[in-house]
Amino acid sequence: MQLGMVGLGRMGLNMAVRLLRRGHQVVGTARGAEAFPTLEREGGKATRDLAGLVHTLATPRTVWVMVPAGAPTQSVLDELRGSLAPGDLVVDGGNARYTDSVARAQAFAVREIGFVDAGTSGGVWGLEKGYCMMVGGEPGDVARLAPVLRDLAPPDGFLHTGPAGSGHFCKMVHNGIEYGMLQAYGEGFEILARSAYTFDLPKVAHLWNQGSVVRSWLLELAERAFAKDARLEGIRGYVEDSGEGRWTVQEAIDLNIPAPVLTLSLLARFASRQDQSFSAKVIAALRNEFGGHAVKKVE
Amino acid sequence: MQLGMVGLGRMGLNMAVRLLRRGHQVVGTARGAEAFPTLEREGGKATRDLAGLVHTLATPRTVWVMVPAGAPTQSVLDELRGSLAPGDLVVDGGNARYTDSVARAQAFAVREIGFVDAGTSGGVWGLEKGYCMMVGGEPGDVARLAPVLRDLAPPDGFLHTGPAGSGHFCKMVHNGIEYGMLQAYGEGFEILARSAYTFDLPKVAHLWNQGSVVRSWLLELAERAFAKDARLEGIRGYVEDSGEGRWTVQEAIDLNIPAPVLTLSLLARFASRQDQSFSAKVIAALRNEFGGHAVKKVE
Repeated sequence: MQLGMVGLGRMGLNMAVRLLRRGHQVVGTARGAEAFPTLEREGGKATRDLAGLVHTLATPRTVWVMVPAGAPTQSVLDELRGSLAPGDLVVDGGNARYTDSVARAQAFAVREIGFVDAGTSGGVWGLEKGYCMMVGGEPGDVARLAPVLRDLAPPDGFLHTGPAGSGHFCKMVHNGIEYGMLQAYGEGFEILARSAYTFDLPKVAHLWNQGSVVRSWLLELAERAFAKDARLEGIRGYVEDSGEGRWTVQEAIDLNIPAPVLTLSLLARFASRQDQSFSAKVIAALRNEFGGHAVKKVE
Repeated sequence: MQLGMVGLGRMGLNMAVRLLRRGHQVVGTARGAEAFPTLEREGGKATRDLAGLVHTLATPRTVWVMVPAGAPTQSVLDELRGSLAPGDLVVDGGNARYTDSVARAQAFAVREIGFVDAGTSGGVWGLEKGYCMMVGGEPGDVARLAPVLRDLAPPDGFLHTGPAGSGHFCKMVHNGIEYGMLQAYGEGFEILARSAYTFDLPKVAHLWNQGSVVRSWLLELAERAFAKDARLEGIRGYVEDSGEGRWTVQEAIDLNIPAPVLTLSLLARFASRQDQSFSAKVIAALRNEFGGHAVKKVE
């Protein structure tokens, strides 16, 4: 089928290429033109801006938005709400907060434009292996999108999770779990690395992927990382977060669910970004006050 | 090669069967005789007790001990230290604490008996898929054991991790990571299950195994569990622990490593076993004292 792709970054371009290679027509646009040659070489059509994309697509249009969550997504969706026509369909494949997707679906519905939120996992490996997609929206809209979802995903790799918002909710929790798994592996490998034994971390990671209980795709990526730099000497222990982890924690709080591991995984990332912890300063100061324990002065 | 197997429970019997099917000779013993018919049907030989096993094996003997960690293992190893001869080799395939394995290797060395600690992962699936093994000990002892390790493990599925103790240390950390992963999945699925959406948990678990970042063998087991009982209504939220988790946390403390996720995963298991939390009682009482907040009375 014919699809418009807005955003041709690591995710959007690879998804467009995967679709083109499976016989779909893709019209793409992006803020910069860097990806246009690749898109065109693969048989797609690039348009300079969103207006051009909307103009080029045959009606009823299907437009997949694959830009960063937050302001970039909001800006694209605002423009699409103005320029698309009743009967068209918009898909947000980014990592929007699910409450935003619920509100956006309602705003598009007023104009009789369909809205589907497609939480997408798979990262840079998706082109080759396919994208795992959690899809929220009206059944008719999801059915209309099925030919594209089937070709983006590996077999069994997409699920209609429920109404609009449920796809991004499911993806949010998926990413929350990912935070916890990453932190668990991180802590375990640190204990191995700093123990009295001299563990060969690339070999241990490889070993654990051969039939152990902790084998996983993330552990396969750990194998790759340790193979490049066995003690990760070239990498700073500084970890960003991009929203889903904190939303998962906030959701757990709203639902009164004790989620200590997902929460601490998020907080560990905050700690990784602090050169100095003010709370640690407070503790050092108070131990000095009550017990005369030495403090380390700032140099 | 010929091997004595002490302990014919879920792990020991399956390992014996796997070895017999790959052409090894196995002489087995266990406290009860329940497993003897299976062992003999598969071509192994059962002996009534440890003395019989030691008597039956040709020298130099290799004896694999697969009994619960703690007193059962200590009792078997004490008897073997008395009855085996210089040149024999003992393997502890159980989940002993690594410090115990270091001490035991020294005690056996005094009698010129080899000792290898083989941390073994794979659970009840090992018979079919092979066991992932982390092996600590002298290089000569590990080399002597290699024919057995190769046939117990899947390809690339065992690693000589270092001196005696290192195998059980590596297995301990493996299990610590497992605690964190399990807790991360548990919290994530609880958020899905108690959200305002009606997620089909068997389908979500299956979906996430198709190309998502959190795919893993544990998540494949989650698929099986949810397929049997989609909301786990037949299972109490009560989780035991069997040592490795708490040892991992103690090791992290000894090494001054902040391991919040592995630690909280252990504490969540403690909480799962409390009908009433005394600390929650204290908090309820104090909130009542300072703020007049209502307490719920014991009925």
